[in-house]
Amino acid sequence: MSKDGATLALRGRLLWFVGDPHEIGEAAHRYVEDGLLVIENGLIRAAGEAKELLPTLPGGAAITDHRPHLIMPGFIDAHIHMPQTQVVASYGAQLMEWLNKYTFVEEQKLAQQGHAQKLSAFLLDELLASGTTTAAVYCSVHKGSAEAFFVESHRRNTRMIAGKVMMDRNAPPALTDTAESGYADSKDLIGRWHGKGRQLYAITPRFAVTSTPEQMAASQRLVEEHPDCFVQTHINENRAEIAFARELYPDAADYAGIYEDYGLLGKKSLLGHCIHMTKREWRAFAAHGAVAVFCPTSNLFLGSGLFDWDRARREGVKVAVATDIGGGTSYSMLRTMAEAYKILQLQGQSLSAFEALHAITLGNTVALGLDHLIGSFEPGREADIVVLDPAATRAMAHRLETVRDLAEEFFVLVTLGDERNVAATYVAGELVSACSTN
Amino acid sequence: MSKDGATLALRGRLLWFVGDPHEIGEAAHRYVEDGLLVIENGLIRAAGEAKELLPTLPGGAAITDHRPHLIMPGFIDAHIHMPQTQVVASYGAQLMEWLNKYTFVEEQKLAQQGHAQKLSAFLLDELLASGTTTAAVYCSVHKGSAEAFFVESHRRNTRMIAGKVMMDRNAPPALTDTAESGYADSKDLIGRWHGKGRQLYAITPRFAVTSTPEQMAASQRLVEEHPDCFVQTHINENRAEIAFARELYPDAADYAGIYEDYGLLGKKSLLGHCIHMTKREWRAFAAHGAVAVFCPTSNLFLGSGLFDWDRARREGVKVAVATDIGGGTSYSMLRTMAEAYKILQLQGQSLSAFEALHAITLGNTVALGLDHLIGSFEPGREADIVVLDPAATRAMAHRLETVRDLAEEFFVLVTLGDERNVAATYVAGELVSACSTN
Repeated sequence: MSKDGATLALRGRLLWFVGDPHEIGEAAHRYVEDGLLVIENGLIRAAGEAKELLPTLPGGAAITDHRPHLIMPGFIDAHIHMPQTQVVASYGAQLMEWLNKYTFVEEQKLAQQGHAQKLSAFLLDELLASGTTTAAVYCSVHKGSAEAFFVESHRRNTRMIAGKVMMDRNAPPALTDTAESGYADSKDLIGRWHGKGRQLYAITPRFAVTSTPEQMAASQRLVEEHPDCFVQTHINENRAEIAFARELYPDAADYAGIYEDYGLLGKKSLLGHCIHMTKREWRAFAAHGAVAVFCPTSNLFLGSGLFDWDRARREGVKVAVATDIGGGTSYSMLRTMAEAYKILQLQGQSLSAFEALHAITLGNTVALGLDHLIGSFEPGREADIVVLDPAATRAMAHRLETVRDLAEEFFVLVTLGDERNVAATYVAGELVSACSTN
Repeated sequence: MSKDGATLALRGRLLWFVGDPHEIGEAAHRYVEDGLLVIENGLIRAAGEAKELLPTLPGGAAITDHRPHLIMPGFIDAHIHMPQTQVVASYGAQLMEWLNKYTFVEEQKLAQQGHAQKLSAFLLDELLASGTTTAAVYCSVHKGSAEAFFVESHRRNTRMIAGKVMMDRNAPPALTDTAESGYADSKDLIGRWHGKGRQLYAITPRFAVTSTPEQMAASQRLVEEHPDCFVQTHINENRAEIAFARELYPDAADYAGIYEDYGLLGKKSLLGHCIHMTKREWRAFAAHGAVAVFCPTSNLFLGSGLFDWDRARREGVKVAVATDIGGGTSYSMLRTMAEAYKILQLQGQSLSAFEALHAITLGNTVALGLDHLIGSFEPGREADIVVLDPAATRAMAHRLETVRDLAEEFFVLVTLGDERNVAATYVAGELVSACSTN
């Protein structure tokens, strides 16, 4: 296979992005009806017309024929919680009650031997079955939870971003670290895992509510010492949360100001939710290049509110999209974008299929600053690939009978699609998931 | 089988409702862990403990063992458009543009020989595969579309409510009837189909925007002459629609007043959407006993707005729930209720799993006045049944490992479930759909 230097070629309908369709329209995507994707050493060597590339293949190259399926870069999920795969679909609460009643209960189980490994393996398999090949992952407060996740990800050779959550207040005692232990554990994990194989580290103070000023300062030290690591946290999801955060940091200009004061609002900072943002907060995000992470199914399920994507665009703020399992309700980035569309529709905004498919591939990698590695079929990119069958369900096959162009076909895929449409997933050129059993 | 007088018994976990859980809590449902549902002549004869009922079965009774699956009354969908199964997931428009750009284009195809038959067969099969055994169905303006739908439904012995749409303005010429032809065609269809086998007729002026006062008056005549028929129409979905309707009927008190003036706001009237309602309109609904039909996936997809269920309850207005395919995006009543939950959460309201499962079974049949025939397992009810596997997907099976009670299990089913969870569907005691291929 490709790892050994041999060449693998996938034949099918190729779709990838080279720019943002919201900005440059049709010029943003590349589509090849009878395409060939050539993979060598786990990297994309070429993508183009099959008839042009087939003669260039070396002898002994393996060709997998995925026609008539659609071949795209693997999907990217910018915010997900590994310990919450058994919290999904917990009833009747908004954010703060939901954390205390369900999430913090489940997260305590990660202290048990083997549980973090089990949940990590489940999550990675489910992501791959959903066509997601990279995610930014919150582990639990336990150092071993991040260790377990990285072990499982490294074993699968997936490019994952993850970090141990830091929380030193407003959580059950069994789920708190201290400013110093959170710092030390994170630093050790960074040393062990950041840049090992395809693994990347995210410094992860959960949110201002669960970190003391001392822990925020320790997080700042980590960021200063490891500027190439990501930072991930939450902001402006729910009004009660916002009020609590402001109460805990009365000197900050606003919620964003809390992170700003501790140097946590930078280009590599991924801030989940950003629903209830002040004008100054939007400006602060733009000034620092911080990323607003839109989590549609979670924002609806927890009743948090409607993310204003048009506003983010007007303010020049980078946006990533994410499932936010377990506040979110689907592992599928297709389903996630279907709900994103609905949230935007409620605000008189829209989201084309090309914009949605860009968002979950190149768009997210640009926001994460990883577009030089993943998210497209440019030569040299890592060969993380999803193969999609847009007609996977009877209702979709029936609907597709009347579509007149690619935009319509892909909109059906985004609106009605989910993990059932994933025919195969490749990680660095290796087939890891074929024909989801979902 | 049961039609021939022989007895069929289904063994599994039985769940049905005898009241509204929002009003009487736990007393509203009946749950039998190891239950038996006994069916004779297509009707429920008994539902209870297997150990008590097994000895009472006659010799030769067939027993189908569905353990550990959940056996419920078939789901009810109170508003769906047969001609729109190939309109689902049409991009980027709110109501009025969506009608003109997509829906009216597809509906014209129903004039073609065989097309209404094809779409009717597809819809009925898809509904049954989704566990839905009764629906209130809009056909197209063509008399033959309703004829074709009834033929297909009668062949399947499904209890369906349907009607030919009446439109005599503000639609393409190929899609308009006249006040007189709409009346005559509807009357003929009522004579042919209302009460034939399990078929029921709904007098169907599409909405005030597409009917002249003359057609509204003709609809009123139909209602007066056939008071046992349903009436189905649309109201208060979208602000542009409301403004247009008010402009067309300047003398009406409000949008509800238009229907009220023509005697179309009665106990058998099913009014889709009811999102933007005035105080007087809520009162008019309550006074006349009219039914507000909540269509969650459609209301989000078309960006129409958020249905206020608490308000409907406070005003004493009956509520039914529905998919509204093709404005809606799923045939599954489970998925529909997951999005209902999200809409309510955005308004600080909630919806328990028992409330959701009640809504799509007994709740809808009470709203439709059909609870003496369907919607529960009371002896004598028609044996329309859905068998559900709550662990049908890997993500659901994983999540169910941690549920502690039925309320949690069923909430997972409602939140993450869809047609994949339908293990079998029975219509009047006959197995019609097993293991959805979706």
